[in-house]
Amino acid sequence: MLNLDEDIAIDRGMTQIIKSAVMVIGGGEDKVQDRKILKAFVENCGGSQACIAIIPCASREPDIIGRIYHDIFTDLGAKQVEVLDIRERPHHDYPQAEALVDRFTGIFMTGGDQLRLCGLIADTPFAITIAKRINEQKIVLAGTSAGAAAMGYHMISGGSSGESPHKELINMSTGLNILPEIIVDQHFHNRNRMARLMTAIAAHPDRLGVGIDEDTVAIFEPNHILRVMGRGTVTVIDPGEVSYSNQLWVSGSAPLTIHNLRVHILATGCKYHLLKRIPISPSV
Amino acid sequence: MLNLDEDIAIDRGMTQIIKSAVMVIGGGEDKVQDRKILKAFVENCGGSQACIAIIPCASREPDIIGRIYHDIFTDLGAKQVEVLDIRERPHHDYPQAEALVDRFTGIFMTGGDQLRLCGLIADTPFAITIAKRINEQKIVLAGTSAGAAAMGYHMISGGSSGESPHKELINMSTGLNILPEIIVDQHFHNRNRMARLMTAIAAHPDRLGVGIDEDTVAIFEPNHILRVMGRGTVTVIDPGEVSYSNQLWVSGSAPLTIHNLRVHILATGCKYHLLKRIPISPSV
Repeated sequence: MLNLDEDIAIDRGMTQIIKSAVMVIGGGEDKVQDRKILKAFVENCGGSQACIAIIPCASREPDIIGRIYHDIFTDLGAKQVEVLDIRERPHHDYPQAEALVDRFTGIFMTGGDQLRLCGLIADTPFAITIAKRINEQKIVLAGTSAGAAAMGYHMISGGSSGESPHKELINMSTGLNILPEIIVDQHFHNRNRMARLMTAIAAHPDRLGVGIDEDTVAIFEPNHILRVMGRGTVTVIDPGEVSYSNQLWVSGSAPLTIHNLRVHILATGCKYHLLKRIPISPSV
Repeated sequence: MLNLDEDIAIDRGMTQIIKSAVMVIGGGEDKVQDRKILKAFVENCGGSQACIAIIPCASREPDIIGRIYHDIFTDLGAKQVEVLDIRERPHHDYPQAEALVDRFTGIFMTGGDQLRLCGLIADTPFAITIAKRINEQKIVLAGTSAGAAAMGYHMISGGSSGESPHKELINMSTGLNILPEIIVDQHFHNRNRMARLMTAIAAHPDRLGVGIDEDTVAIFEPNHILRVMGRGTVTVIDPGEVSYSNQLWVSGSAPLTIHNLRVHILATGCKYHLLKRIPISPSV
């Protein structure tokens, strides 16, 4: 989980204005009407003081998608918006990467292909600096669709639905390691991905599965709180009590057995405590 | 749950040969190759001594579907197979219904529309006698697809997938009340029905959700054991620990919040104790 210790926040001008968070968006967020999620991102980044970088490199049409978000964030009142059109792995050293990242209060990763996104930036000083600045609560990071899928250490890079859970239902890869303890799936109920996230979690029972519906965001806030906002739900799959699974020895095509998954369906306004692994009732 | 008390089994010739059970089949069972599930049904009904009634009235083409199963069960060695082509609610009194039911060691309900099936036979002396004979361990009952959906008291009569869980995702009706404590969903992972079964269970947290994949059967055996057989999985959704749900007060289109569902995915060979509500590890 994010090691967000309030004590280590360094008192700089920029960190005063942002509401540090990682916003993991399930794709298909409203870009036309209320734009609640994108508006919340801009607000978290400092509103009229926000300096936002867009990373569109998951997409095969980065200039088009970059331009779309550029116009939205500008329209929503951000002070400065820049598209970082990364088309090959950046060769920054750490001082260069830090100088780049520190120009921004927020970074937004678009949809596309999570393998492409990770192939271009995972494990670069640029991505490692972003993770560091998040831990220092100096920046806000948002990712939608592919940009959401890449948040974990383990990443679902592809898969199917409409079949019993089995190992060949999914392809796993390595993500950006921003939120190492979770495995994200997006377009979750919209694309019927419960079986594939359960399959991923069966293979990695030390992680927490987080399935995010379209136009919905799981906001990872300081103090280990996941907060839900948006039109759909966030599904948390907790394998902490799994007492039996055949995952290790069955063939890839054989159906899985998994005993004792704990599942929470969380609609807008709900909170979940990531360290205690308990949902927080709305009245509390 | 089935009140199957071994002591009450009456010693009649017929009950000696059958292996009392309710076989809830997720639809799409193999009818051509190994026919494992249908073969197991005939075996449970007494094998070469089996007298089987087919109830095809869920289907709009009961003569065609009835003929198909008639030929399969005959081919699998049943002694006698009869299609009960019920096209209006039967007007038996109890002695007539008992005389009819007692001619058979097994009854098989086909697929089609579960509303049609229940509309024709629910709450008739015929259906009530079947339930009674099951409790007395004198008969085997199997249902596939619609015939499976109708097993509970609460029945999912329709619904969608590809959306966040919300009340309008499903239509509920009343089933045959053979297994009152469960809500069945079939074609389960094949048609991505996890969200709809979770939605149904949120509305009826005193029941147990049982989602059955195609070519897979949940066999409800005496002593409160559910046993899985077939190509896919049986998913058990246990709301016994649900600590919070907004089900009662949100509008039909609003996403549901449900805390602490317990979910088990069970592949062939797995058992689940219905009274203790625990899966039994394969090694036990």
